[in-house]
Amino acid sequence: MPYPTRVNLIDVGPRDGLQNEKQPVPAQVKIELVQRLQAAGLREIEVTSYVSPKWVPQMADNHAVMQGIARQPGVRYSVLTPNLKGWEAAVQDAPDEIVVFGAASEAFSQKNINCSIAESIERFAPVVEAALAAGVAVRGAMSCTVGCPYEGEIAPERVAYLAGLMRGIGVQRVDVADTIGVGTPLKVQRAIEATLRHYALEDVSGHFHDTYGQALSNTLAALQLGVANFQSSVAGLGGCPYAKGATGNVATEDVVYLLHGMGIDTGIDLDALVDAGVFISDFLGRKTQSRVATALLNRHAG
Amino acid sequence: MPYPTRVNLIDVGPRDGLQNEKQPVPAQVKIELVQRLQAAGLREIEVTSYVSPKWVPQMADNHAVMQGIARQPGVRYSVLTPNLKGWEAAVQDAPDEIVVFGAASEAFSQKNINCSIAESIERFAPVVEAALAAGVAVRGAMSCTVGCPYEGEIAPERVAYLAGLMRGIGVQRVDVADTIGVGTPLKVQRAIEATLRHYALEDVSGHFHDTYGQALSNTLAALQLGVANFQSSVAGLGGCPYAKGATGNVATEDVVYLLHGMGIDTGIDLDALVDAGVFISDFLGRKTQSRVATALLNRHAG
Repeated sequence: MPYPTRVNLIDVGPRDGLQNEKQPVPAQVKIELVQRLQAAGLREIEVTSYVSPKWVPQMADNHAVMQGIARQPGVRYSVLTPNLKGWEAAVQDAPDEIVVFGAASEAFSQKNINCSIAESIERFAPVVEAALAAGVAVRGAMSCTVGCPYEGEIAPERVAYLAGLMRGIGVQRVDVADTIGVGTPLKVQRAIEATLRHYALEDVSGHFHDTYGQALSNTLAALQLGVANFQSSVAGLGGCPYAKGATGNVATEDVVYLLHGMGIDTGIDLDALVDAGVFISDFLGRKTQSRVATALLNRHAG
Repeated sequence: MPYPTRVNLIDVGPRDGLQNEKQPVPAQVKIELVQRLQAAGLREIEVTSYVSPKWVPQMADNHAVMQGIARQPGVRYSVLTPNLKGWEAAVQDAPDEIVVFGAASEAFSQKNINCSIAESIERFAPVVEAALAAGVAVRGAMSCTVGCPYEGEIAPERVAYLAGLMRGIGVQRVDVADTIGVGTPLKVQRAIEATLRHYALEDVSGHFHDTYGQALSNTLAALQLGVANFQSSVAGLGGCPYAKGATGNVATEDVVYLLHGMGIDTGIDLDALVDAGVFISDFLGRKTQSRVATALLNRHAG
């Protein structure tokens, strides 16, 4: 399989990233971040979540953020909708895509959302139906497709099972996520292959955490299967809830560097992206998690 | 090309790593580090350098370190010998292998050692001859095989040229080093292929810096060409002299995790290796650069 000539990156920093940062971030800063990402060439941005502010106070400003963005044509703005109530709130802000989610691990599903995998997907069925009827695209985030903090390794069969359930309720495309970053290339390839039993290649994206430093080798392994959509987080926003001080989402800058170095087009201006990462890292008062940004910003400074 | 079933790791932390750390490290700590590495299963360790203490004060204790190690049968202890004087000093300590070096970049060679590539290799010829005559193995470290801080990208032809010169003076095996960590998988594969014009696969090792986070994807790309020897540094010792605060040598822990995750044997006990990295990081009073060590040490601590 030849490498894709073009890869599409979905920056999940504003939602998945900032949701896992302890520090509150004002809506205006989030809007600025989204606008810097689109100016840098990102064509898909996961913006916010419509979940109870009781559970996720970081996303309580969802309407303000979605309505504050100066939207660009050709950019897809996606939002997380955990239930019908979330969907009803989200639709007021006209997202291009909603994101529903499920885990490939039963233990994770139980601990995280207190129901089985099958039950969690059933609950999403009316959300997906409503979104599709309204002409809004639907993506499914599949977590723990390689490993689970409670169960350990996850068999590819479990990933195929989850992908089949997602397909069954009408989810149009899915993310194969290594939520705790324990995956290595061959395991990630098996999770993707399991997903491909239910989804076409162009409808599968890779979402790799860099907790064990493996995200880019897993990206390379996914590219070798022809996967051409990846999720990542500018400046590596988000951290890892399962290992204090460890890296979570792979930094978008690092993925872009890999792809451009291989001659794969992303449409992204790396310098502008690094600037966007500096903007939000400075706001959070911490160093970027991107090794590329760290190296570029300190080049010849040693 | 199927993946190798077994990979040999050469830990360069005690030499290449500690040489680039600012803090002085007593011989006894270096000896303890080497012994912890061999206890963890490392079968090749780059121990020290026989260079003028005027230039590299960190390695002034070379005799004390080499003579202080409780050597294990089956472990190869290598040392850097920049010239005949270095070789004469080294041979007193009975190393198993000496390391000579050269750059694939003319500009780097000029700036670093003040002579052309060809001249630098000529100067090593008597060192190599003396080592081989004494029954000591010879490895050649080829730096800047992908990029150079002064010249930018390095053409594979330049790598082939350097490898040919190394072969010409009798160097038995060579390292393909991405000294500033700018490489990505296809460029690294081209550098390795250029080397393979002069060396057999089993005599080539990959030495990738993680400055831009690319070391493990480059390792995967090298494995896919059949390369089965890699250099790395426990705890990522060494930093990067070309980008302040950036990562240099890829951490051995991270490479081991990748390989074991792919079912490739290394003979290394990852937990014991992480402990060795903690030992030296604690001594240096800084955090490990290994993402695997960081994640394992903080697992479930978030």
